[in-house]
Amino acid sequence: MSKSNLQVSLEIVLFSLIAEKLHVYVQNCATAPYIDKYCLPHGDILFTEDNTIEEAIMRTLKALQFKSLSYIEQVKTIGGIARDPRGWSLAVVYYGFVAVDKMIDSTNIQWIAIDDLQANDFAFDHALIVQESHQRLKSKALYTSLPAFLLPEEFTLTDLQKAYEAVLDCKIEKKSFRRRMLDAHILAETEKVRRANHRPAQVYQLIDQTPHIFNRIIEGARH
Amino acid sequence: MSKSNLQVSLEIVLFSLIAEKLHVYVQNCATAPYIDKYCLPHGDILFTEDNTIEEAIMRTLKALQFKSLSYIEQVKTIGGIARDPRGWSLAVVYYGFVAVDKMIDSTNIQWIAIDDLQANDFAFDHALIVQESHQRLKSKALYTSLPAFLLPEEFTLTDLQKAYEAVLDCKIEKKSFRRRMLDAHILAETEKVRRANHRPAQVYQLIDQTPHIFNRIIEGARH
Repeated sequence: MSKSNLQVSLEIVLFSLIAEKLHVYVQNCATAPYIDKYCLPHGDILFTEDNTIEEAIMRTLKALQFKSLSYIEQVKTIGGIARDPRGWSLAVVYYGFVAVDKMIDSTNIQWIAIDDLQANDFAFDHALIVQESHQRLKSKALYTSLPAFLLPEEFTLTDLQKAYEAVLDCKIEKKSFRRRMLDAHILAETEKVRRANHRPAQVYQLIDQTPHIFNRIIEGARH
Repeated sequence: MSKSNLQVSLEIVLFSLIAEKLHVYVQNCATAPYIDKYCLPHGDILFTEDNTIEEAIMRTLKALQFKSLSYIEQVKTIGGIARDPRGWSLAVVYYGFVAVDKMIDSTNIQWIAIDDLQANDFAFDHALIVQESHQRLKSKALYTSLPAFLLPEEFTLTDLQKAYEAVLDCKIEKKSFRRRMLDAHILAETEKVRRANHRPAQVYQLIDQTPHIFNRIIEGARH
């Protein structure tokens, strides 16, 4: 292709679970005509520094002070003439998870519940990027342990169920959920017990660093 | 990013099912040092013709004389300094399915069984692109009706089972497979019956134009 006018950016949808709700990290857009709109954190590929796209992503996250994501995945690449007023552009989109205990304290950081975000809050096509990333996350949550990666390193089965419920936006039956998670051998018991309202709850960690694929989709999760 | 030196290409992995085996479409590479190696069909984005990446893909497929794919999906974007001797490059990878009855007759076309291809048969990083596309297809075949889209419009349950077996590279238990496919209400009976060795087999068509997600993964498919 003609090399002039092509913009390539990396767009990152950061998800976190705050107060049992799925949140997205947004910045304030400084580009007209989108002043006062939200935009996603983004980065560029630097030929002299990055050997691969993944290196560019890691450098971008480090610059944003997100050093320890529990999960990151490329979602898709979108591109076209209409998505950026400056010309034909490509955006390589990733989503990543930031556990609530790994959040950094900065006034530039805005975590907004995904249910509170509307399409016209966003600059460019970032509403579409968030929507497609959320849809991918929901699809994968149906049959993998992906929502577990939204949690801090140590969590109870109730925490885990609430993570699934937040991602899938539905109630899940407790007994079959617990049986499924324990039968999959993806959780390691820690020596800790957490005392909440009534009975003590076992604290777990994930065994594997990659999501597990279940034999059946999460029950009750498909409407 | 600096705009100079960035190559962006579209790379297309075309899959087909020929003689009950998964095949990939390859071309002969004309670029040194890869003469005599295979490469994937590829295209460019043309700023003046293509409004989106999808339009560029459709134009590329048309130029290759593949007008009627039964399925197409973006796999991922890979990019780096080392993947092309000409400089930093991005490849946006798609895979698509060509049903055997829609194949065009041309001496430039080479369909090779995926089991007969080895990594060093390929130019550039195209072996890796094929491998990752194949892996994505296998993953999706575990819990969706995607392999059905490899078949011609009309097929029997035996054809469908063989498509799954070719993609997943394993034997599937006939009775539970048939029950699963019929219970999912994704197939419409045609008025045709095909007579093979012994008993007549009902001929079906797909009802939906998008893959169906099953409640359970295909039994016997995980080793």
